[in-house]
Amino acid sequence: MTDVTEPLPVDATTRIRREAERQVTDRSVLHAILDEALLAHVGVVRDGLPLVLPFACARDGETLLLHGSTGSGLMRLATGQPVCVTVTHLDGLVYARTTFDSSMRYRSVVVHGVATPVPADEKDHALRVLSDHLFCGRTTEVRASTAKELAATTVLRVSLDRASVKVAAGPPEVDPDDVEPRSVWAGILPLTTVAGEPQPSPDVPPGTPVPRSILDAAARAAGLR
Amino acid sequence: MTDVTEPLPVDATTRIRREAERQVTDRSVLHAILDEALLAHVGVVRDGLPLVLPFACARDGETLLLHGSTGSGLMRLATGQPVCVTVTHLDGLVYARTTFDSSMRYRSVVVHGVATPVPADEKDHALRVLSDHLFCGRTTEVRASTAKELAATTVLRVSLDRASVKVAAGPPEVDPDDVEPRSVWAGILPLTTVAGEPQPSPDVPPGTPVPRSILDAAARAAGLR
Repeated sequence: MTDVTEPLPVDATTRIRREAERQVTDRSVLHAILDEALLAHVGVVRDGLPLVLPFACARDGETLLLHGSTGSGLMRLATGQPVCVTVTHLDGLVYARTTFDSSMRYRSVVVHGVATPVPADEKDHALRVLSDHLFCGRTTEVRASTAKELAATTVLRVSLDRASVKVAAGPPEVDPDDVEPRSVWAGILPLTTVAGEPQPSPDVPPGTPVPRSILDAAARAAGLR
Repeated sequence: MTDVTEPLPVDATTRIRREAERQVTDRSVLHAILDEALLAHVGVVRDGLPLVLPFACARDGETLLLHGSTGSGLMRLATGQPVCVTVTHLDGLVYARTTFDSSMRYRSVVVHGVATPVPADEKDHALRVLSDHLFCGRTTEVRASTAKELAATTVLRVSLDRASVKVAAGPPEVDPDDVEPRSVWAGILPLTTVAGEPQPSPDVPPGTPVPRSILDAAARAAGLR
C-alpha cells in the first residue's frame, strides 16, 4: 500500500528539467489534478514510432484507470506495454508585456508506467469507478453492467508511482531590463470548463427530471464541487 | 502547395480502425479543430519509451507550429524526430441508459510527422503566428521580438499531410434490445471552455484599458468568434 503522505519519488525519468522549480512532489496535488481530468493523452511506441491517443480516465487510489473498447487498436497496443499518460489543465493565458514573456498557466501530470488490463474479477469495480467519476455517480441511476458488457470492455490501469507533476501559477514574469511602459496591460485571462444546458434525448418523456448525476457534473464543471 | 480542397490521405498509419465511420477527411474540419486548440500533446520516443508532453500550438497553413523554450528537454528530443501530435476537444458527456453505452462527444486530430525547427529567417513570422493565435492578435499591442529573444526561442513545425481526424457527435446510442425504461433520463451534457474576468498584474495602473486581444480571447473562449 502506497503511503500517500510520502512525496512522489523523483528519478531520471520523472525529474523535470525545464522550469524545475515548478515540479511538485505532493501526492495530494497529483490526485487533485487527476480527479479533475476526464481525458488523458496516452502515448505508446508502435513500430518504433510514437502514437498518442485520448482515453477516458479515472483515478482509483494510487492507480489511474484508462477506458476504451476491446476493439480499439490502442487498447491492444498499450496492454502490457510501457505507456506515458499525460493530463493537462490549461488554467489561463498569461499576457506579459512582451510576446517572449507571455505564457500559460497550467497544471500537468505525466505518468510513466506499464498499462496492465484490470483482471476480470475487478472489472466491475473499475467500471463503476470510471462511470461514477466521469458521470458523477451515474451507476446509482442505471442498471448494473451485464456479464456480456463487462466481457466486451477492457480497462487498463497504470500505477501512479512514477509521476511528474508541474504547476505553472502566479502573475506574468517581468523582465526588469525591459523598457516597456507600464501602460501596456499585463495580466491573466483565466480559462475554465463549464457545462451547458443538458440536452435530453428525443425519446425522453417530457417532464422526466434531470438526474442528480447531471446536476453534479454541471456543478463540477462550474468548479462548484 | 497543398490543395486544401483535397481530402486528407488515409494510409495504414492514419486510417482509424475503431469506429471508422467517425473518421473525417475534410481538411476544413482538421483546420477548425486545430484553430480552436491552444495546447497539443506531443509524443516522442525517448530511449525506446514513449514520452508525451503538452506544447502550445498554432496552425500556419498546412503545418502545425509547436512552441517551447530552447531549454526544454522535449524540444531537443523532438527536433528532427518522428512525433505524434494529438489535439482533443471534449465537447460533452453522453449519458446513455447504461454505463456501457455512455460515452463522450469529442473531436480529435492525430498528426504523424517529423518535427523540424523553423529556420532562423522564418522564426519571427512563426512566433507572430503563434502569439496572434494564442493571444488573439497580441503582437499589435506589444513591441516586436528582439534578436536575442528570437535566438532564445525554438519553434518546431510538423506537416499536416498525415493527419487523422475523428469526430464523435450526435445523440446517445440506444441498444434496441435493452429493456431499460424510457423514464431514465438520457442525453448530453455539453462542455465548453470559457474565460473568467481578466486579472491585471499588480503593476498595471488603475484605469488602464483591457486590450482588444483580451476581449477577443474572452469572446473566443465563449464561442462567440
